[in-house]
Amino acid sequence: MNLLSTVRRIAVVAPHPDDEILGCGGTMARAAAAGIEVHVIVVTRGQPPLFEQSLVDRIRRETLHAHAMIGVADTHFLDFPAAALDQVPRSDLNHSLSTALSRIEPDLLLVPFVGDIHLDHQIVFNAAMVHARPRTSSGPACVLAYETLSETNWLAPGVTPAFIPNVFIDISTTIDAKIAAFSSFETQVKPSPDERSIDAIRALATLRGATVYRHAAEAFVMIRQVG
Amino acid sequence: MNLLSTVRRIAVVAPHPDDEILGCGGTMARAAAAGIEVHVIVVTRGQPPLFEQSLVDRIRRETLHAHAMIGVADTHFLDFPAAALDQVPRSDLNHSLSTALSRIEPDLLLVPFVGDIHLDHQIVFNAAMVHARPRTSSGPACVLAYETLSETNWLAPGVTPAFIPNVFIDISTTIDAKIAAFSSFETQVKPSPDERSIDAIRALATLRGATVYRHAAEAFVMIRQVG
Amino acid sequence: MNLLSTVRRIAVVAPHPDDEILGCGGTMARAAAAGIEVHVIVVTRGQPPLFEQSLVDRIRRETLHAHAMIGVADTHFLDFPAAALDQVPRSDLNHSLSTALSRIEPDLLLVPFVGDIHLDHQIVFNAAMVHARPRTSSGPACVLAYETLSETNWLAPGVTPAFIPNVFIDISTTIDAKIAAFSSFETQVKPSPDERSIDAIRALATLRGATVYRHAAEAFVMIRQVG
Amino acid sequence: MNLLSTVRRIAVVAPHPDDEILGCGGTMARAAAAGIEVHVIVVTRGQPPLFEQSLVDRIRRETLHAHAMIGVADTHFLDFPAAALDQVPRSDLNHSLSTALSRIEPDLLLVPFVGDIHLDHQIVFNAAMVHARPRTSSGPACVLAYETLSETNWLAPGVTPAFIPNVFIDISTTIDAKIAAFSSFETQVKPSPDERSIDAIRALATLRGATVYRHAAEAFVMIRQVG
Amino acid sequence: MNLLSTVRRIAVVAPHPDDEILGCGGTMARAAAAGIEVHVIVVTRGQPPLFEQSLVDRIRRETLHAHAMIGVADTHFLDFPAAALDQVPRSDLNHSLSTALSRIEPDLLLVPFVGDIHLDHQIVFNAAMVHARPRTSSGPACVLAYETLSETNWLAPGVTPAFIPNVFIDISTTIDAKIAAFSSFETQVKPSPDERSIDAIRALATLRGATVYRHAAEAFVMIRQVG
Amino acid sequence: MNLLSTVRRIAVVAPHPDDEILGCGGTMARAAAAGIEVHVIVVTRGQPPLFEQSLVDRIRRETLHAHAMIGVADTHFLDFPAAALDQVPRSDLNHSLSTALSRIEPDLLLVPFVGDIHLDHQIVFNAAMVHARPRTSSGPACVLAYETLSETNWLAPGVTPAFIPNVFIDISTTIDAKIAAFSSFETQVKPSPDERSIDAIRALATLRGATVYRHAAEAFVMIRQVG
Repeated sequence: MNLLSTVRRIAVVAPHPDDEILGCGGTMARAAAAGIEVHVIVVTRGQPPLFEQSLVDRIRRETLHAHAMIGVADTHFLDFPAAALDQVPRSDLNHSLSTALSRIEPDLLLVPFVGDIHLDHQIVFNAAMVHARPRTSSGPACVLAYETLSETNWLAPGVTPAFIPNVFIDISTTIDAKIAAFSSFETQVKPSPDERSIDAIRALATLRGATVYRHAAEAFVMIRQVG
Repeated sequence: MNLLSTVRRIAVVAPHPDDEILGCGGTMARAAAAGIEVHVIVVTRGQPPLFEQSLVDRIRRETLHAHAMIGVADTHFLDFPAAALDQVPRSDLNHSLSTALSRIEPDLLLVPFVGDIHLDHQIVFNAAMVHARPRTSSGPACVLAYETLSETNWLAPGVTPAFIPNVFIDISTTIDAKIAAFSSFETQVKPSPDERSIDAIRALATLRGATVYRHAAEAFVMIRQVG
Repeated sequence: MNLLSTVRRIAVVAPHPDDEILGCGGTMARAAAAGIEVHVIVVTRGQPPLFEQSLVDRIRRETLHAHAMIGVADTHFLDFPAAALDQVPRSDLNHSLSTALSRIEPDLLLVPFVGDIHLDHQIVFNAAMVHARPRTSSGPACVLAYETLSETNWLAPGVTPAFIPNVFIDISTTIDAKIAAFSSFETQVKPSPDERSIDAIRALATLRGATVYRHAAEAFVMIRQVG
Repeated sequence: MNLLSTVRRIAVVAPHPDDEILGCGGTMARAAAAGIEVHVIVVTRGQPPLFEQSLVDRIRRETLHAHAMIGVADTHFLDFPAAALDQVPRSDLNHSLSTALSRIEPDLLLVPFVGDIHLDHQIVFNAAMVHARPRTSSGPACVLAYETLSETNWLAPGVTPAFIPNVFIDISTTIDAKIAAFSSFETQVKPSPDERSIDAIRALATLRGATVYRHAAEAFVMIRQVG
Repeated sequence: MNLLSTVRRIAVVAPHPDDEILGCGGTMARAAAAGIEVHVIVVTRGQPPLFEQSLVDRIRRETLHAHAMIGVADTHFLDFPAAALDQVPRSDLNHSLSTALSRIEPDLLLVPFVGDIHLDHQIVFNAAMVHARPRTSSGPACVLAYETLSETNWLAPGVTPAFIPNVFIDISTTIDAKIAAFSSFETQVKPSPDERSIDAIRALATLRGATVYRHAAEAFVMIRQVG
Repeated sequence: MNLLSTVRRIAVVAPHPDDEILGCGGTMARAAAAGIEVHVIVVTRGQPPLFEQSLVDRIRRETLHAHAMIGVADTHFLDFPAAALDQVPRSDLNHSLSTALSRIEPDLLLVPFVGDIHLDHQIVFNAAMVHARPRTSSGPACVLAYETLSETNWLAPGVTPAFIPNVFIDISTTIDAKIAAFSSFETQVKPSPDERSIDAIRALATLRGATVYRHAAEAFVMIRQVG
């Protein structure tokens, strides 16, 4: 029995570039290696004055480079303003994200967690769920929420929604590819003991793996699966 | 993508006979039809004076008949005392259930829900989880909890654990087989509006199906999946 | 003992027309038949370009027709923009809804569920609760949240708030009136296996009824009751 | 609208004598004054060597005296061993409690809270729920859980089930009777700042009242109501 | 062992003036008396037309007077519009609050509760948590959420986040100072049985105290502590 | 501000030997080095036929050796039967544990988590909480629950209580001592990728540390703190 073995197309929704690598870079790499078509939708882009244009351009290059390393089939940029999704009419965001997802037609949809501290993550989760409403039989068969270091542990888990994983994907063969891909985000890697450090990423993979007797894993919260 | 398509062997743990039909009779029938080996472990047996021997014997015949209709490969009776599992040393129960499951080696394990009102259900859930500890890489890849009419809605959901399903298995093709199998438990079927009535079983299947745009479904809570 | 028997006036707050029928059409019909004054407040109206004007006009006619069938005493339209409540200053919405409720002076207040997937539902729930703050002894004695097919099961129950009902109102005598009223929303009824189909509505009523040994029921989450 | 106005018979299940006064003494007094028949079932009795016989006898006299003050119609003693319900076969307890409740036929059933620290409370809650299963239409229409000072706040609320009240019964007219009745348990009243002190009882009533704009109230968690 | 004994600087974030007194006035007074530097950040100010200017001016005077009584070292006004934080870009609020907190460098941070009914409270909680992200080792070592009468009990606890306290600070010596300080908000004190009455404040302190065998206490939810 | 700096005496309650090292070995080592008196109460002992006597004897030696390495002041063995606490009258266990804790008089009490898969852990948690009831002002000022690899992640977190930590103790200086102490349990250390492997222990410490910008930490759930 194997969750990935019958998947044809995966869509990962990332509020900001690098969330998708932190959350499911190993899973994407494993899926791509197995011939599954992996798409990433990056919802926001940093915009002046909150973000410097040169930094934004650099991050975009880093993103594409990381995605190439992982084997992402296509990266879709929606270019909503980063750290300002609260200022975007929700119907605009819902429409834009749903249009992108309808083109991809994923059977596995990976979304950020609604309890992440960044409001952009919370909003993107909700927008993705609006698309995933089972109003036909052709939507994604499975929706999983991934965890993002520096986001998922930093709101108030237990008071706000806590990430309590129940799906674990073995990334023993791709943890190194994940770390290499994240390392290519030179602007985003931090030294230990930051949660965005290589040490923390590796520790999380080791821990999530050990919980299910695997050498490395990424963990998810099952949102909905239809079988 | 399809949860059942890579399963080889299913074990369903039933505290009492007919729980397995109410909870996942449609899933079992669909799996059996697809060539998956389906095992049922019935943990308890009614014993005098709490239960009349003639009734107990009759239920056992009904059980085997229902299982034959569903296509169950093998039914395993552990024969612990029904409605008295609180009087059984937990290590005895754990050992016995674990031995049975180790022989079956299921990759999909279906268990009753820990929030069911019957203490036997709560105890059996815990015993099954003890077996499912990931102490090797060969345990069940997926553990799901099923819902049982006349048990799952009757404790105090929201104060005690609530059954909030996130996995839905399409039983459009086997809902009739499920109802036929349950009907063979002549001692257990009740007239409307009892939760153990045919009307209630069909309504639940319709509702769980509609939630995911299917004509009939059985719903589960994901306990743990390793992929 | 009977929850409805001492109620004088009910107010149902509906984010969009038909939510009130799906959620508590049977309860409203039973209450109206018993001489209780039933009011509905429809918070939003579809507005171009998100919604076509001709469709909006038609839905309004359907709403009034359905309410007449149910025996609603008065329907109050607040006309905030549908699917765009996130763009409305919250103090405007709070003020408008509170003004309407203050005129009605209900002793039973029925509101949508805060965990519904539609942001409009979440916002309306909060606005209704602001009005219901017990700042005097004359507010509604009881506030219940109703469930809405195609909304309540489709966010991420368990991660987001789950609808776990603890109040059940017998609608055995009015389930047919409820379905007739919903059927008059010709634009909104969907064929099976959609959650907005007649089959799903009937299945939900049968299931909620069976849980409490009634032939049909509507279920609610108790928010607050003062006795 | 008034929760008590259509009640005919109340049964309060108390694990130990005085739980019922702490939890719902004011409600019982108000109900009795309104002509409602109020029954109390005391599940356990202290037994040597855990409890001294003379103390046990004295507490029984205090109980009957307190019940007379409150206007209790009848007090039923089941005499299971106090602080030792874990040693009683659950089927015995279920049978005994159910027999007592079947004779009373209450339409309102008040039970201790499942998250109380005392195991006896947890077990009694479950036994009461077994009786309250809606297997006919004649069971209690409403089941509420009450809070008990020195029990309900002392397990690990938030990790174990938390008492989050949503039903408030006005005891402005009977708070003094409640305190007088509790004071008659001379063996059980403690000086401030103990939770079993008169000050704490009065503070709780004032706080629960203020939450709903009443001078004094008892608070409950709605378990199930059928209307 | 004593939570306050090693604290050097406390920052209390108050959505509106008087929240800080209701939530932690006794703790502030005790801390100030012990030589701890206590800062209050008042996030909003009433603005016409929602609030009359003369009232706003008066409340500001009351605030400063109350803070002087309590021994607050400094009060910081951010002057965002009251009851309209939903209209403020979140990045503006986050930036402003974070700037203020960075200047104070508290080791203990007290914030309103995310489940309070007032949207301003929910938003301020999130903004404070954004600042408190552990991106260096110099942030606040402890973050606690306080409860506010007339806010914390009035959303839908149990459906929305419930305030389930696990930290209790003894205010036996300062409950009178707290009540005196709150009384100086002449515009805000209400007569019994309002939750904002002196009776309710005192009852809450007595109850929270009794829960931990103290004569008076303020209760908090632990958000995060690093030791 | 520092949680440990005002602690005088710590008691750690361990259901089985090595739980205390896995859960809080680093904290104990740091506390002992700071001059705090650290006590461990080991509740059970393996007994034939469930456990071989020679193994039990060996584990006891390993325990004492590990405790010496950590700097434990005293180890108290209660010798209840391991994996059979469900067969022990709860009042016996409560009495025995409470007697031991009353002698130690800890101001910081560390207990296993109630959601651990092992029934012994659940029972010990409850027994420790019974002792910790605030019936005087002299009980432990702080009670924290620790997490145990191979126990805490293996029940059904989210359905059963989930370990959602909110207290983090920096063990950067003692993570090596913790691992050395656990390594001395030669019978208990497992190779990767078992949760009881050195790799998993180190990964957990790194992750819990990174969450609060520390190089290593142990995480806890705050049960109750009085300050």
